[in-house]
Amino acid sequence: MAEIVHMIDSEVFMAFSTYATLVILKMMLMSPMTSYFRLTRKVFANMEDTAFGGSAEDRKKMIRVDPDVERVRRCHQNDLENIIPFVVIGLLYALTGPDLSTALLHFRLFVGSRFIHTVVYVMALPQPSRLLAFMVGLVTTLSMAYRVLTTALFL
Amino acid sequence: MAEIVHMIDSEVFMAFSTYATLVILKMMLMSPMTSYFRLTRKVFANMEDTAFGGSAEDRKKMIRVDPDVERVRRCHQNDLENIIPFVVIGLLYALTGPDLSTALLHFRLFVGSRFIHTVVYVMALPQPSRLLAFMVGLVTTLSMAYRVLTTALFL
Amino acid sequence: MAEIVHMIDSEVFMAFSTYATLVILKMMLMSPMTSYFRLTRKVFANMEDTAFGGSAEDRKKMIRVDPDVERVRRCHQNDLENIIPFVVIGLLYALTGPDLSTALLHFRLFVGSRFIHTVVYVMALPQPSRLLAFMVGLVTTLSMAYRVLTTALFL
Repeated sequence: MAEIVHMIDSEVFMAFSTYATLVILKMMLMSPMTSYFRLTRKVFANMEDTAFGGSAEDRKKMIRVDPDVERVRRCHQNDLENIIPFVVIGLLYALTGPDLSTALLHFRLFVGSRFIHTVVYVMALPQPSRLLAFMVGLVTTLSMAYRVLTTALFL
Repeated sequence: MAEIVHMIDSEVFMAFSTYATLVILKMMLMSPMTSYFRLTRKVFANMEDTAFGGSAEDRKKMIRVDPDVERVRRCHQNDLENIIPFVVIGLLYALTGPDLSTALLHFRLFVGSRFIHTVVYVMALPQPSRLLAFMVGLVTTLSMAYRVLTTALFL
Repeated sequence: MAEIVHMIDSEVFMAFSTYATLVILKMMLMSPMTSYFRLTRKVFANMEDTAFGGSAEDRKKMIRVDPDVERVRRCHQNDLENIIPFVVIGLLYALTGPDLSTALLHFRLFVGSRFIHTVVYVMALPQPSRLLAFMVGLVTTLSMAYRVLTTALFL
């Protein structure tokens, strides 16, 4: 990690910025998607969100759990559990000064796998498609973590 | 992104550090708030948390779902889904060397909107107050992401 | 924060990279642990995950909530709520140029407390062991946030 100051200004760091931003934007898309399903299914979590809904009786019925909404929420949760580790470890990895081509391979594999993961999850495509997309992302992050630990280990 | 090394040492980065820390502290406040509601409502998720609770029968009854506790937990979850993207994209944004006044506007709008969002959510104030607070935060983050992608795009 | 550029290249930053990576890897371990409990208990959240399960009737029964799976998921959620603030505030803290020994004390206390927290939570050990592990992590993060705010305050 001797060259960090110079590396920050590098193409690897720009590539990291680009891919991290893209995959975070993808994650943020899950909020409007949840809202879309809530509005079309008329399923809400908060009483104040049903104010448009007519009588008190009708509004109470809208406070329930819907499988489609829950599916999108699980997908969002899986993003939080996997994309945030990628961003943290990817930032540290970018600062270890990896080859640009190796770094791009990691960033592209991870971001691609998460876009595929979302499509597979929301459309409920058959397994093991979701498992594979998840595994590609996991292995990519572990590979970057391995480089961070072998380059910068200081316990 | 040519000037990153110099920018890190700048007022923009100090401003980012300040606002990111404040909004993360706000998010962390949701844990004690959840505990407060759990203790005052005597509603728990884990059997071992009810050890003070007398008979086994009484303790079992404490393992349930309470609407007030769930509201605080949803607010916490919404923080995770929105504040973490702000921190990641805000860090990269701070490194693109924006004007101090523009950067401050983004950071203040976002952090302000999230404090308002929490008050509105926990007190269950009528819509569209929560939606508006959420939208201000979302648009601020998107605006920063736009600058990161137009300044540092490297695919 | 005058010395940031030099600090990035320092032992404090390498120590932060090491401990942040280790604690993020610990957090990522919760996903396979959840899968392990789902597979051994035959409890799933998605219909497509039960494809191995024989008749449609049998498969439907696998879509349910299991206390052991939920316990691991709550532990994972608690990690998200606490480890991510540590990573964000820890990064900013490392850039304020603290003493190496002070920084190591913070990083070791936090990471140690979270490993203990996981063991205590998953094995359902009696309270207040989980509360203590949680509090150590919380106080460590607050102490780092205090230094960031007193060093870099720029509102």
